[in-house]
Amino acid sequence: MFESAEIGHKIDKQTYSIQVPELRASLVEAQYELNEARQFPVIVVVAGVEFAGRGEVINTLNEWMDPRHIQVHASRAATSVELEYPTLWRFWQDLPPKGKIGMFFGSWYTPLFRELANGNKNTADWERAMERIIRFEKMLADEGAVIVKFWLHLSQDALKKRIKKLGKHAETKWKVANLDPGIVKNYQSFKSLAESVVIESSRAHAPWIVVESSQPKFRNLTVGTALLQAIRSRLKHGHTHSITSVAPIHQPLDQLGLLDTLNLDCALDRNDYKQQLKHHQGRLHRLAHHKKFQDLSVVLVFEGNDAAGKGGAIRRVTGALDVRQMKIHPISAPTDEELAQPFLWRFWRRLPRRGRIAVFDRSWYGRVLVERVEGYCGQDDWMRAYSEINEFEEELSEANMLVIKFWLAISKDEQLKRFKEREHVRFKKFKITPDDWRNREKWDAYVRAVNDMIDRTSTAQSPWVLVEANNKWHARVKVVKTIADRLEDALR
Amino acid sequence: MFESAEIGHKIDKQTYSIQVPELRASLVEAQYELNEARQFPVIVVVAGVEFAGRGEVINTLNEWMDPRHIQVHASRAATSVELEYPTLWRFWQDLPPKGKIGMFFGSWYTPLFRELANGNKNTADWERAMERIIRFEKMLADEGAVIVKFWLHLSQDALKKRIKKLGKHAETKWKVANLDPGIVKNYQSFKSLAESVVIESSRAHAPWIVVESSQPKFRNLTVGTALLQAIRSRLKHGHTHSITSVAPIHQPLDQLGLLDTLNLDCALDRNDYKQQLKHHQGRLHRLAHHKKFQDLSVVLVFEGNDAAGKGGAIRRVTGALDVRQMKIHPISAPTDEELAQPFLWRFWRRLPRRGRIAVFDRSWYGRVLVERVEGYCGQDDWMRAYSEINEFEEELSEANMLVIKFWLAISKDEQLKRFKEREHVRFKKFKITPDDWRNREKWDAYVRAVNDMIDRTSTAQSPWVLVEANNKWHARVKVVKTIADRLEDALR
Repeated sequence: MFESAEIGHKIDKQTYSIQVPELRASLVEAQYELNEARQFPVIVVVAGVEFAGRGEVINTLNEWMDPRHIQVHASRAATSVELEYPTLWRFWQDLPPKGKIGMFFGSWYTPLFRELANGNKNTADWERAMERIIRFEKMLADEGAVIVKFWLHLSQDALKKRIKKLGKHAETKWKVANLDPGIVKNYQSFKSLAESVVIESSRAHAPWIVVESSQPKFRNLTVGTALLQAIRSRLKHGHTHSITSVAPIHQPLDQLGLLDTLNLDCALDRNDYKQQLKHHQGRLHRLAHHKKFQDLSVVLVFEGNDAAGKGGAIRRVTGALDVRQMKIHPISAPTDEELAQPFLWRFWRRLPRRGRIAVFDRSWYGRVLVERVEGYCGQDDWMRAYSEINEFEEELSEANMLVIKFWLAISKDEQLKRFKEREHVRFKKFKITPDDWRNREKWDAYVRAVNDMIDRTSTAQSPWVLVEANNKWHARVKVVKTIADRLEDALR
Repeated sequence: MFESAEIGHKIDKQTYSIQVPELRASLVEAQYELNEARQFPVIVVVAGVEFAGRGEVINTLNEWMDPRHIQVHASRAATSVELEYPTLWRFWQDLPPKGKIGMFFGSWYTPLFRELANGNKNTADWERAMERIIRFEKMLADEGAVIVKFWLHLSQDALKKRIKKLGKHAETKWKVANLDPGIVKNYQSFKSLAESVVIESSRAHAPWIVVESSQPKFRNLTVGTALLQAIRSRLKHGHTHSITSVAPIHQPLDQLGLLDTLNLDCALDRNDYKQQLKHHQGRLHRLAHHKKFQDLSVVLVFEGNDAAGKGGAIRRVTGALDVRQMKIHPISAPTDEELAQPFLWRFWRRLPRRGRIAVFDRSWYGRVLVERVEGYCGQDDWMRAYSEINEFEEELSEANMLVIKFWLAISKDEQLKRFKEREHVRFKKFKITPDDWRNREKWDAYVRAVNDMIDRTSTAQSPWVLVEANNKWHARVKVVKTIADRLEDALR
C-alpha cells in the first residue's frame, strides 16, 4: 500500500508557484459553493507517520482557504469529562454541520494508531474499536458527509532525514529534543500494522489517500488537489449510493508511478545466469522437500506485460520442483460454469492442499487489469475487487498458504522487439495474436491499472515483487531466488 | 429481537391447507423463472434454536419445490482436507450457480453459534470470524446473490415442550435420548448471545428473518412465503445497490404483533396505586443516591401513543429524583442546527454525565416512527436507522450508561376518550392539536412501525419495556418500579 509513497515524488519550485494560486482560487470557490448549498459537510482526517507534517498540511489548507468555514480539531488527550462518555462522543461534538469543513488532526483513529505504536493489535477490544469506526464512517457517509482521509507517509530513510534536519536548525530543534527512539527503531513494525489499518478502513465511502510526504511541496499540492476533487465531485454529482462517484484513485501529480522507478535493464550475463539459476533452483528443490513443507502450501501468481517472459520464468520454477507436488493453472476467459459464480470462485477451487504448490499463470488480478481496461466489468466491480482480493489473500495467509506475486515488467520498446521476433520465428508464431497488438495500443491504460493494483494490493503479508524483465536471465533468477528466500523464511 | 417470536404465532389448519397449494405453485413458478433467467443465485441459510425444526423446514421446502434445482448442504464437521484450507473454503465449493437455490443447514454461522453455545464470545478470533462472514456476504450480494437467512426461534418454554413431546413418541424418542442438558439450562445466555449475532449480521443485503417455530404450520408457511417474496422481488426489480429492494420487514402471516399480546387494561385501584408508587419512588430515590451511582449514568426513553400518559409517568419518575441530578429533554422537530447534522447528533449532545439522569420525552426513535410514517425520511434512511440505533445504544451501554426504554400503549378507544376529555377540560386543552387527530387516522401504520421498532431494537442490553397504559395508575407504577429494579441490578 505504501510502496508508491516511497519513490521520491517531487514537484519543482516553478510548477508549484504556478499551480498553488490556481488551486487556492478553486478551493475557495468550492468552499463558498459548499457553504451556500449547505447540503453536506466535508470531513477531513489527517494522519500519518510522525514528523510527516500533519500539522503543516492543516495549516497550509487553512492558509489557502477561508478559515472561517473550517473547523480544526487538534490532537489532544481526552479530558476527564470526555472519559465519562463513549469514545466517539467527543468526535460527535466536533462534527462539522452541512456546508462546513471539519479537519481532524486528532481523529477517531488516533487511539488505534497509538495502540499500534505500542505494538498492540488483534485484541478483541482493538477489533471492536476498528469495527465501530467503520460503522461510524458508514453512518456519516449515509447521512451525506464527504469523508477524505489522508495518510501522510515517510519511508524510514525519509523519516531519519527529516529528524536530522529538524535537529540542525535552532528554531526546530525543540521538536526532536525529547525524541522517542522507538519512532525510528520500531518503524517497520508500525508501518506494517498501520498499513493493515489503512487497508481495512479504506472503504469506497471513506477512502484513505496515501501521500508521500518527503517533499512538502508535493505533499501540500497533492492534499489540496485531492480535497478539491472530492468537494467538486460531490457538488457536481450529488449524493448517490454508488461507489463510483466517491472512491478516487489518484494519479500522482508528478505522473510518477512505481513502475517508472524500475530499472528495467538490470543485466546478467549468460554465465552468471546459468550458475545463479542452478544455485537457487537447488535451494528451491531442497526447501520444497523440507519436512515442514507439509504444513504449508504455496500460491505463486505470475502477472506481467504481454511477452514479458512469464512462461519462461514459470518453467524455471517448475523445473526445480517435483511434478507431483505442483500444478500450473493457465488462466484465460472464464467458463460458463465460472461465469455463474462470483469472480473469485474459480480461484478458490484451484487452491492447493498442504504440501502443494499452485502456479497461476495470470490470476484473479485479471479483474483489475484486463477486465478494468477492456470494460468487461463496471467500475463499481473492479473498485470493490481490490478489497475483496486483499481479504482473499489474507484468508489464504491465515490458512498457512504462502502467496507470492510477481509482476514481470518490460519496456514498450522491448515488447515491440519481442512481438516482431515472435512474428518472424516460426516456432514462436503461435505466441502472438492480434489481441496482443490491440492490448499494446492500450499501454498507458494498462500502466495506470498496474500502478493502482500494486498500490492497493501490495500488503505486508503478500507484497508484489516487481521483476525487471528486459533481461530474461535477470528476471528468471530473481523469480526463483525470491521464491526460495520466501520459503526459507516461512520454514524457519 | 426475538420478543415477537415468542408470542405464540399460529396458523389454523384450514388456512394452511388453502394457502399451501397456492404457495407451492408460486414457488415452483418462481424457481423456474429463476432458472431460466440465470441471472442470480439464491442462498438460503437456516439456523436457529436446537429442535426448532431446521431440518424439517429444509425438507418441506424441498417437497414444495423442484428439488432438482435446489442444492442442500447439511451440517457436518469439517473433513481433514477441509481443515487444510481457509474456513470459508468449503462454502465456496458449495455456492449455488446463478439460477439455482442453495440451502445451507450447516452454514458459515455454524462454528460461531457453536462457540456461543460454549459461552465463548468477544475473543479477537471470534470478532474476526464475524467480520469475515459479513464481508463474505457483502461480496456475495455485490456479485448479485439473493441471500435470505432464517432464524428459527423457540422460547424456553416452547423448547421444553418440544423436547417433552419428542420424548413421548416412540419414533422421535431417539432425538432426545442423549440430550445435552445445557441446551435447556443455558438457554437464556445462548439466546442473548445469539441475538447479538443476529443483530450484528443483519445487513440490508443479507437480513435475518426471525421466525417463531413453536407451530410447524406457521413456521413453514412463513419461511416459504418469505423465500418467495425475496425471489420475486429480485426477479421484478433486478439487482440494484439500493437497500429498499432487499431489506424486507415481514408482516407476520397471522397479523399478530407484539402489541396485540398486551392486556392494556391491567388495573390498579387508587389505594394500591398510592401505596405502591410511594414505595417504588422511595426505592428510586435511595438508589439514585447510592455511592456507586456516581460511576453510572442513566438514559430514560419515553415513547408511546399520543395521550398515553408519558408526561404523567415522567413526572412520577422525576418526583423521586433530585433536580440537580437529572434533566428532561422534550424532543420535537429538529432545529436548523440539528438538521445540518446526522440525525443522532442532537441526542449525542444531550447525553448525561456520570451520576446524572437524562429523561427523553420522545427520542431518536422518532426516526423509525413519525419520520417513517409521515415520510419525512426515505425508506433507505429509516431502514438503516435500526442498526445505527442499536450501535448507538451499545456504545452507551459500554460507557456505563443504563438505557431504559418505555413504550406506553393505550387502545384506540381509550385514546379517543382521552382526546375528547382534553377538548372539554379547559386546563387540558393545550394538550390536543389537529396533529393529534391526524396521527390518529394513521393508527394502523403506527402500529406496524411500533412492532417493527420493537422487533429490531429490543436487545438483551436495552430491551423495550412495554407498558399497558389504559390504566394510568398501573402504567406509572410499572415505570417507576422498572427503573428501580434496573438500577438495583446495575448497582449490585
